[in-house]
This record gives sequence, structure tokens and C-alpha cells, in this order.
Amino acid sequence: MKNEEVMKIAKKRGFLWSSFEIYSGVAGFIDYGPLGAILKDNIMKKWRECFIVREGFYEIESPTIMPEEALKASGHVDHFNDPLTECKNCLDVYRADHIIKEATGDDVEGLKNDKLSAILSEQQIGCPRCGGHLTHVWGYNLMFQTLIGAKGKKTGYMRPETAQGIFIPFKRLLRFFRGKLPFGVVQLGKAYRNEISPRQGVIRLREFTQAEAEIFIDPKDKTHPRFKEVAKKMLTLFPSKMQESNKEPLELTAREAVDQGIINSEMLTYQLFLANQFLEDLGIPRKFIRFRQHLSTEMAHYAMDCWDLEVYTDHYGWIEVIGIADRADFDLKSHSKYSKEDLRVFIEYPDPKIVTKLMVKPDMKKFGPLFKGEAPKILKTLKNVNISLLNQAFQKEGYFRLEIDGDVYELTPDLVDFQEVKETVRGEKIFPHVIEPSYGIDRILYSVLLHGFTQDGARTILQLPADLAPIGVCVFPLVNKKELSELALKIQNDLRERNIITEYDISGTIGRRYARSDEIGVPFAITIDHQTLDDNTLTIRKRDDQKQVRVALSDLYITLEKILKGVLKFEDIKI
Amino acid sequence: MKNEEVMKIAKKRGFLWSSFEIYSGVAGFIDYGPLGAILKDNIMKKWRECFIVREGFYEIESPTIMPEEALKASGHVDHFNDPLTECKNCLDVYRADHIIKEATGDDVEGLKNDKLSAILSEQQIGCPRCGGHLTHVWGYNLMFQTLIGAKGKKTGYMRPETAQGIFIPFKRLLRFFRGKLPFGVVQLGKAYRNEISPRQGVIRLREFTQAEAEIFIDPKDKTHPRFKEVAKKMLTLFPSKMQESNKEPLELTAREAVDQGIINSEMLTYQLFLANQFLEDLGIPRKFIRFRQHLSTEMAHYAMDCWDLEVYTDHYGWIEVIGIADRADFDLKSHSKYSKEDLRVFIEYPDPKIVTKLMVKPDMKKFGPLFKGEAPKILKTLKNVNISLLNQAFQKEGYFRLEIDGDVYELTPDLVDFQEVKETVRGEKIFPHVIEPSYGIDRILYSVLLHGFTQDGARTILQLPADLAPIGVCVFPLVNKKELSELALKIQNDLRERNIITEYDISGTIGRRYARSDEIGVPFAITIDHQTLDDNTLTIRKRDDQKQVRVALSDLYITLEKILKGVLKFEDIKI
Repeated sequence: MKNEEVMKIAKKRGFLWSSFEIYSGVAGFIDYGPLGAILKDNIMKKWRECFIVREGFYEIESPTIMPEEALKASGHVDHFNDPLTECKNCLDVYRADHIIKEATGDDVEGLKNDKLSAILSEQQIGCPRCGGHLTHVWGYNLMFQTLIGAKGKKTGYMRPETAQGIFIPFKRLLRFFRGKLPFGVVQLGKAYRNEISPRQGVIRLREFTQAEAEIFIDPKDKTHPRFKEVAKKMLTLFPSKMQESNKEPLELTAREAVDQGIINSEMLTYQLFLANQFLEDLGIPRKFIRFRQHLSTEMAHYAMDCWDLEVYTDHYGWIEVIGIADRADFDLKSHSKYSKEDLRVFIEYPDPKIVTKLMVKPDMKKFGPLFKGEAPKILKTLKNVNISLLNQAFQKEGYFRLEIDGDVYELTPDLVDFQEVKETVRGEKIFPHVIEPSYGIDRILYSVLLHGFTQDGARTILQLPADLAPIGVCVFPLVNKKELSELALKIQNDLRERNIITEYDISGTIGRRYARSDEIGVPFAITIDHQTLDDNTLTIRKRDDQKQVRVALSDLYITLEKILKGVLKFEDIKI
Repeated sequence: MKNEEVMKIAKKRGFLWSSFEIYSGVAGFIDYGPLGAILKDNIMKKWRECFIVREGFYEIESPTIMPEEALKASGHVDHFNDPLTECKNCLDVYRADHIIKEATGDDVEGLKNDKLSAILSEQQIGCPRCGGHLTHVWGYNLMFQTLIGAKGKKTGYMRPETAQGIFIPFKRLLRFFRGKLPFGVVQLGKAYRNEISPRQGVIRLREFTQAEAEIFIDPKDKTHPRFKEVAKKMLTLFPSKMQESNKEPLELTAREAVDQGIINSEMLTYQLFLANQFLEDLGIPRKFIRFRQHLSTEMAHYAMDCWDLEVYTDHYGWIEVIGIADRADFDLKSHSKYSKEDLRVFIEYPDPKIVTKLMVKPDMKKFGPLFKGEAPKILKTLKNVNISLLNQAFQKEGYFRLEIDGDVYELTPDLVDFQEVKETVRGEKIFPHVIEPSYGIDRILYSVLLHGFTQDGARTILQLPADLAPIGVCVFPLVNKKELSELALKIQNDLRERNIITEYDISGTIGRRYARSDEIGVPFAITIDHQTLDDNTLTIRKRDDQKQVRVALSDLYITLEKILKGVLKFEDIKI
């Protein structure tokens, strides 16, 4: 089905609403209605099952408000900008790259502000509304700013990504993981982007939900211990080179992608596989999924390599729903520099290394008589002197000036000998590299709805996988008769006690009720009819093919639990 | 255990950390570490199971950034203030009521600003730091302010509560629930409060997580259909009258509380019961739980009655963790007024009412000749004229002035007759009342940790209910031997595939490993020893009493699933 029809049903049936409608709305914000919120929660539950339970990562939760220092270090205060231009006549404000694209058709995203200014003036592009002259292009910071506290007025921002909240407590995380790489930490939560004039519904929000994982790895070892499990899986890859030369995406196995150097590591490729699998498990066919590599002009300020999982949509074309980046050591290095905290990790060598070091050996027979009572402190300081500087001074000046608390001592070459000593080095301190899959939950949910809604003749069906469906079961008395409705209500209650969201509905014909439940994706409907009162059996109807089986009431609950969990197929229900 | 020890372990083991530590920290913000985040998520999961699955409410999710209009309507722009005073000498800023309490011991929370100013000057209270004079008290708004969008600079705030996000789309919600009361809508998410100088750790945060339910009910019917199920449950109640007369809290059944008029309705009382049950299910004993009614001075601007569920803590005394309020029709009425949208609900009478209405009946014989071609339009307008105004004019002036599009027609009494007609009225439009339980998730988690940590000799145990524990199972090879550790890793993997967070640990003695797992609340540990290799059995150890049973590997997974879910007791495991 098309975007417009999908959004219409989504609004009508309580999946997605524009926010603040009674106050004329504010662009870039949405409400998840009663069915949308459960669907979103189910997607996030599935994500946690994948990353926390199965992959073994741990979740943390850090604040959405962040102090300026932290975002200065991350680069967001200086670089998280959109290129803006203002009409000198009507004072309307626009994104320069968008205006140029509208006027010329050229994609200029990522160009520097002065280049964009030059294009605007060379091509004589005016205000799209009034035709007025446009100003020079400037960088408009996309973070929502606020002030923390009543005194001091500390500047803060709503976080632009959840990732930073993971880098900041890195030392504590490292201790939690007992100092060993690799380890993965995830965060799910809100992130914010003060878009200039968002016009794309759910696709471009000012407040959105991310699920991000930061996987800290040894830069010298980007292999993945479980890569062989995914090596033969197919991926649709659109490398930057193919884009630049107007070629088609490639179909490669994960193994081929690594071996041919298309993706820079097993670690990164494994995440592409997981992302692909996650979306397929949400019901999006692989033909609508591809991975597009970022062009050098669009790469974020922190990324070494980046692939977007894109989903095809009729209305917006291919849209990014997951970004998978190799952030290298950008973030930890930068936070280390700004905070003056050592955020490196000690990596033990497989075998300790024996290194040969040059040591200074003072001639004690000469030192004592020459420096007398000051000899001990001079000897102590000498131990820490850089040997190559010492040698250099001997060769250039003929002596070395040693300064201790303002006093200067001149050491001549005859006072010392040099000696080679062997030392055992067990490892070294390094900044880990970071692999980051970043899932845009709102866009994923939109993709799930878009590809989930199908039309079967007059029937509209939301074909959600059973574990995503907001409502698990509907219970319908065939007709409005007391004995039937009482039993239906009891079944509703019992199923809710078993943690299955169940709805009872008596209004309208049975056909109308099936249609309503199909449209909101309820996978199974139970119907109670006159025969139920005779022999304690009832029918279970499957949403997707409308097939029905009659089961005994005594088997109902266990059967439903099994088919909802996917451990029993509807077709295999024993009658 | 005491607050200090609990917080020390919580920090060390990865439950709770101060945020932004490497940037010297920012008061009022916390990080949930790897174990804290899962614990929080498990508490929220349990909350959803209670309110969404069992109570049948629906969740929605609205933005955390809200436009000013909406918060003007809710009263937060004008009333969400703390009383502030500044030292004229050192310019430090304080909460006036806190300073007065420190200086005099009197609780003056809720007093008006001019009263607080008077107390400060009468009692000659100076700056606690430098002794300087303090300024007049003013209202400092506690919302974080921001600006939305690049043009127009629209003022927005971080929401002070999740509740408002439910009132704003009320019309859409009403339609979702097919226009029928009662219904309940919940929201879980962040809320913000820009505290002046928060000093109480997890207890007073600037960014916190709420789980709120808004239950929309008919003001004429505040009974609860399932009240009889909870009628006999005991509640510890501390009504405002008992507080004012320095008496002790009462022990009453839910039924008694309603019958004696202590709590104003069944609907409100039912929510007190649910809150009490929820905390008990989290492992907090009832003796540490009480309900304190708000005094009239502390009641929020929107509340008609309000009870706080308080938990006892050694460090902070009794702290509010859940607030349960009858908000009456304050919010919907106010949003209706500000937005000019009708947010009322049509309530059908049990039986239609027959009302007698006076109707105007024009004398057609006179109308036609008198007004000719204009008669039809005059007759049409006359139908909508208020009859009592018409009558009044006849009596006072002797005629009635009817104005249509600027033309004036004088109607005299002889032109019309009055006639009584009977009309069937099916119902009326009303503003629903709202019962609101508001759960402070951070404080609940703190209470769970505080009352969960226990000391058994040298052993520190976090006695979490199994369904709350961040890690479900630990797998320990008794000694570091390849066959044992390979099997242990396989079991870890298999359990994770079954959606159980499982950790493998080989480092240190088995006693040390048990101690570590007890301290983070892992309910069950599996130990693999030499006998395992002989007969395929292994031991399951229970955290709380250290008892062990030996089970067959083939029964392990199903046994663990059952004891973790609570459907099988550890004591009943068959050997």
C-alpha cells in the first residue's frame, strides 16, 4: 500500500498522530497512539533481545540533557550544523542545500558553506517564496539549547545522539567489563535535532528514538569470533564507488564483502548482517533493504567508514533507517583530551615483549666528591631524564644542564656511562576503536507499517509478525447472547492474566469485527458460537489467510501461547 | 543495610553512577549503569504488565518537548514555581522555604511568597553561607526552557510531567475508546524539573522517569467494578487530619477507608491498593509502606485529593515514590478553554429523559400578510430565538426586536403563540474526572535497592525477586578445566537463546564467584564439576539460602525457565 493510505489508517486506528493538534500542531513531533506505542515497545523489546540477551551487550541509561563541555568534546557544538540562508526581503529561513537542489536538481549535501553561498549567487537562486535575495550561508546548530540550574546559568543541550552518554562513563564501563576488550554497550532513548522546517512526517523528527550500540574493540583485531556463522549470508551493498560511477548495488555474501575489501572489517560486516536480519524479522522483505556506503562528502565528522541500511518507500524513495559506522577512536580520544582523563585501555600482548633499553649509569666515584650532599637528589632526578636528550646535549654542547628546583647543575660526559638493559613489557595502552550500529526506531516503525499493510481485495490486513502485534488476540461472541459474551469476557480475562493483550468485541457483525481486527494486525481471533455451549470447543481464526480451526476450550490457552511465541505453527494445531 | 553502603555497592557494581563524572559532574543527573538499566527496564516491564495487560489501559507516547501554549493551559507556566531568594551580598540563590526550615525548624512548604518574605525579615534570617541580607522571595519556574525551530523562535519547555501528553490528544483517545467512559491511558517516560540545587542523589533529580496513568471516569460514578476483589486488603493510611493533630497513621481495609470517607472514592482507593501491591511485588515489605494524604497547603494546583505512597528510608525518612491524585476535571476543562476545542464526553442517561420545552408557534395567518417575502427568513431565525428573552421583551417593551443581517423587525405578542412540547434527551456532555497514579521510577528503583540489599554475616545479598534480577543465571565451571568451561559456555549460550540473561565466570575461587553473584542479585547459579562429566548432572544454587540441588542437564533449561518465572518453587525441583 502507498504512504498516504498507510498514514491515513495509522492515524484513524491509533498508531500515529500529529502532536499538539488542539494547539495547531508543531512540526517535527509525533504522538504514538495506543496501538503505535505498543508496537514501538515491541520493536524495542525485540532489539533488546537481540543485542542484550543474545549478543551479550549491556544497556546503560544516561541523561538526555548534557552539559556544554561534553558536547564541545564530541564535536557537536562546533560541527552539528545545517547550512542556513535567509531571504533579505521576507526574512524566511531555508536550508541552503535544499534550496539549491530544488532549483538545480544537484545534490550538494555536505558542501562547505562558502561553496553553497557561491552557488546561490552564481546561479542567481532567490527566495522560493518571494524571489528575494538570499544571504550568505551560515552554520545553524541543530541542538536544542537550555540552561541548567538557577544560579551560574550553566548551558546545556538536549543530546543529539545517545552514543555520547556511553563514551563519557567509559572508565566505569571498562571496570565493569574487567578491563577486557571487546565489549558492547547499548542505549535506547530519545535524541533531539532542532530541524529548521521539518516537512516529512515521521521521517524527519525533532525528537526521535534511537537504539545505539557502541562496540569497543582492539584496533588491531577487527575480526568477529562468530563471523563464520554469518559468512554465507547475502547482503545488498551499494559502495560509494558504485554510486559515484552510477552503477548498480552488488549482491555479495558477508565473506565476499570482507575479502574484497568492500567493507573494512568483519566487525562492521557482522553488524550489517544483524541489521539486515533484524529488519527481515520485523517483516520487511530483503528486496526492500540495501546498504549504502556514505560518500566522503557526507561522512560525519567522527566516522572512518559508514553504511546506511536503507529501506525502500514509495513516497520518500530509499530512506536511511539504520546507520552503521566505524567511529575509530575519535570519541574516546577527544573526551580524553577535553576532560584530561586517561580513557585508554591496557592491552596485554599475547606474549610479553623483551625490549632493550638504554640506561644511564652514573660513575659514583666521581659523583660523591663533586656534588657532596647534593649528590642523592641529582642522582634521583637523573634517573628520569630522557636519554636521547642527554646524549644530544653531550654531543652538541659538551655538557647537560640539569635543573632541580631552580638550581642548575652541569653534567659532563665523564660523569656517566650508558648501559643496555632488558625489560619485560606485558602490553600497551591504546584507545579502542568503536563500531556503532545506530537504529532509528521511528523510521523502523514507519517501514514496518508501510510494508506490513496489505490489501487483499476489499480486506486491509496489517501483516505484523505475531510478536510485534499490539493486540495478540481478539475474542468475539458470534452473537450478542449473555452466555456467549460472559464466556468471551472470561477468556479475555484469563488470557490477560497470561500476559497476552486481548480485546473483547461485541459490536457489529462478525465480518465487520474480523475486518477491524485484521486492519490493526491482530494475528488471531477466537469466536465463541452456539456449538461452544454444547461441546466446549471454539474456533481460532488466523488473520493472514482467514483459516479457522476448532479447538477444545481446555487446550485454548496453551495453544495460543505457543502459536503467538512461534513455537507451534497454526497449521499444526491438533483438532 | 544503610543508604551509604547501598549506594557504594550500587556504584561499584554498575547500578547507579553520577553523570558526567569526567567533566566534574552535574548535580541532579544520574546514569543507570549496566545492571541498573536492566533493573529499571524490568521494573517498567512489570508496571506495563500490571497496567496495560491486566488493567486493560493503553499506553501512548507523546513528545518530551512541549510548546508554551499547552503548558500555559496546564498551569505550569504560571504555577510550577519554587520560592527563591538571593543573598544581596554573595549572590547565592536559595529556596526560601528550605532556608526557613533550616533556621527555625518550621515546615513552611506551600506558603505564599509574600508570607515567606515576611518570615525571612521578621525572623532576621540571613544567608546561610555569608550571613548577608536576603532579597524578597520570588517564584522561579522549574521548567527547562528551549526554543523550537530556526525561525519564529517558538518557546518550548521540557515537560514537567508525562500526564499533559495524555490530555492534549484526548479527543483522539476518546474516539479510540469508542466514546465510552471509563478508560485509562498511560505514559512512561522522562520528565524534567530544573531544581535550584539538588543535593539528594537519586531522590531529587532534574531528569527523571515517570510512569503515569490517567483514568477518565464519569464524575457521577466513582465506583470501581472490581472493588470487591480488593475490599478486604489492608492499607496504612495517614490522613491529613491525623497529621495535623499529630496522631498515628491508621490501619484500614480498602472498604473501611471508603465507607468512613477517609479516601474520596472506590476509584482512588483501588489505585492505592494497586500501588501497594506493586511495591510489595518488588520486594518492599508492607511495614515500610504508607499512604500520606496531602495537606491543603501542599496540594498541587490541579488536585482535588491526593495521597502519596511513601517508603521508609534510613537516610531521608519517609519519601514519596508514588502520587495518587483525583485531578477532577481541571486539565480537560483548562485545555478546552485555551484551545477552544470541546473536550467533553457525551454520557448517555441510563434511560432517556423526557423534558418539556416551551416552543414559539407563529400565527401564520398574520405573518404572511405582514412580512410578505421576508416572512420565511424571519420564521427561520425565530426558531433559534431564546424563549425567555422573547418573553422578557414582550413584558418589558411590548415587542421583540429581531435583527437579521442588519435589518430589524419588531415582533408583537399577537404574532405568536407559545406551546409546550415534550422532547427526548438521551444524555449530556460532561468533562470527565481523572484519577492519576503517578509512579516515580527512579525512587522506586532506589527503594528496591535499599530494601533489597541484606547482610548475612559476611555475605552481601541483593534479594531481588527473580523477575527483577538483571542477570538471571550465572554459570560457573568449578575449576578452570577445558571440558568444564566449554560446557559452561555452551549452557550460557543456550540459556541466552531462551531469552535468559546469563553470565559465565571462571575467575577466582568458586566461593568468590558465588559472593559476586549474590551481591548483584543473581537468583540462581549453576555449577559444573567433575561429576557433570561422568553423569551429566549439575547443581543449581539458590541465592537466598545457598541451598543446592543436583539436576540432570537434560532437565536444566525447562527447570530454570520455570523457577525464574515463579511457576515452580526451587524447593519442588525434582532430583
